[in-house]
Amino acid sequence: MNLIDGKAISAEIKKEIAEEVAEMKANGAKIPHLAAVLVGHDGGSETYVANKVRTCEEVGFKSSLIRYEDDVTEEELLACVDRLNSDPDVDGFIVQLPLPKHLSEQKIIEAIDYRKDVDGFHPVNVGRMSIGLPCFLSATPAGIIELLKRYEIETKGKHCVVLGRSNIVGKPVATLMMQKSYPGDCTVTVCHSRSQNLKEMCQSADIIITALGVPEFLKADMVKEGVVVIDVGTTRMPSTATKSGYKLFGDVKFDEVSEKASYITPVPGGVGPMTIVSLMKNTLLASKKAIYK
Amino acid sequence: MNLIDGKAISAEIKKEIAEEVAEMKANGAKIPHLAAVLVGHDGGSETYVANKVRTCEEVGFKSSLIRYEDDVTEEELLACVDRLNSDPDVDGFIVQLPLPKHLSEQKIIEAIDYRKDVDGFHPVNVGRMSIGLPCFLSATPAGIIELLKRYEIETKGKHCVVLGRSNIVGKPVATLMMQKSYPGDCTVTVCHSRSQNLKEMCQSADIIITALGVPEFLKADMVKEGVVVIDVGTTRMPSTATKSGYKLFGDVKFDEVSEKASYITPVPGGVGPMTIVSLMKNTLLASKKAIYK
Repeated sequence: MNLIDGKAISAEIKKEIAEEVAEMKANGAKIPHLAAVLVGHDGGSETYVANKVRTCEEVGFKSSLIRYEDDVTEEELLACVDRLNSDPDVDGFIVQLPLPKHLSEQKIIEAIDYRKDVDGFHPVNVGRMSIGLPCFLSATPAGIIELLKRYEIETKGKHCVVLGRSNIVGKPVATLMMQKSYPGDCTVTVCHSRSQNLKEMCQSADIIITALGVPEFLKADMVKEGVVVIDVGTTRMPSTATKSGYKLFGDVKFDEVSEKASYITPVPGGVGPMTIVSLMKNTLLASKKAIYK
Repeated sequence: MNLIDGKAISAEIKKEIAEEVAEMKANGAKIPHLAAVLVGHDGGSETYVANKVRTCEEVGFKSSLIRYEDDVTEEELLACVDRLNSDPDVDGFIVQLPLPKHLSEQKIIEAIDYRKDVDGFHPVNVGRMSIGLPCFLSATPAGIIELLKRYEIETKGKHCVVLGRSNIVGKPVATLMMQKSYPGDCTVTVCHSRSQNLKEMCQSADIIITALGVPEFLKADMVKEGVVVIDVGTTRMPSTATKSGYKLFGDVKFDEVSEKASYITPVPGGVGPMTIVSLMKNTLLASKKAIYK
């Protein structure tokens, strides 16, 4: 079994980005600038945004954090998006999800200029990804692809089973894994809550990418010897074993499945750390106008 | 075996559209107007566009045909797209593909205002389809979904195998078949030229949608009893058996497979006639501003 070390790979990529930024600085170029909009004080969102801001510092980006209280109106938030769209200093920005219920996430996402949509959630970026055109790939699928690439995992002609059909992981990663490219060129099956034959599908899979959010769902009897397992699931469960009082669980029963797997990501330390570096990469691409002019 | 009669269903839908247009006329509303741009004199394209224009007449739409010679420049064609984008009388338009090699199809498609993109090829429509938002669905996937719906074919939890991963059929129909909707909610597998286990996949399928363009590729030993088969393949082969000197072949060896299938589309007369009515439906939606304002 080979552990896919997302923490190490993400550190490597951060170093690569930092070097490029240092060079840009040395050449007198503008420093990449990522802005983040945070509404309210949700614990998870606070942590994610704080990590993003800290990672910006690590790689040498400029970052801005714009905060609103829970009772911000849609008009105020849309006006903020407009300002960021037209601010020439901001290369890319994100609005941290989820938003309070009185705000339409889809409306906010679509208001973002797709050329600054470094989360890759705007329909233009989703559509271009599907067609196979240059675009901002959303962070989790991009992170998964990068892990497969860095570990030189063979994908061509393989059977890749994706568990989950969400807009931010399942559907985009399925599309990427079937494209005529490397990593890619897989036979891809997407399973979900309605699938009648999920176990058999997993048993026939060469690669399993699971994004269900069901702790320890994938067990040893569901996979074949030599399978590659990418675990996107992260469920926070109360625990007396940790100081914080909770523990993160993936979708995979790691101790069992890792004995059969050829490659496997841990939780935490697998896909998680890759998502932030994907966002940094998109911001770098935005600042270089490498995708859109 | 039940034959899925695309010709009959498309006639039914045309009648429904014609009735709605007649009512719009009676109410003094503007008549839906579809424009088609045809470059050169390719036999296939001429036929397709002529059919589209004729179908417009049948359902009571206004249609315009704009022709260019093979040597039209990209600038001229883009200027034409611009004019159609800003012509308030034109509700929707298509640029018939393929285009001569010196023209970038992608550039032309992206120049079309997505609110008039009744072919559903613009990244905004592709992205919105993927996310599950209202959009112009491209004609062939929409036609397939409509056939499944009209024949009340059960799809929830079924295993749907899609053969082919093209941007205009394989990928979008796979996305639609996995969405949380009816028809949909399938476990979906996409196979293609690189798939190592295509035959086994087909044998486990409850529904097969094939869009390979390989005549009579799918044979009886590749499918299970009771399978639903949707054949999108249409390959023109020389034949002495017809007056025209050619014959259309689907991807399915029909005589064999039809004996095992519960439902099957013929070629011709299956998916083919549905694509034009999908285009008409999109044009009607465009004229009513039912998708975009």
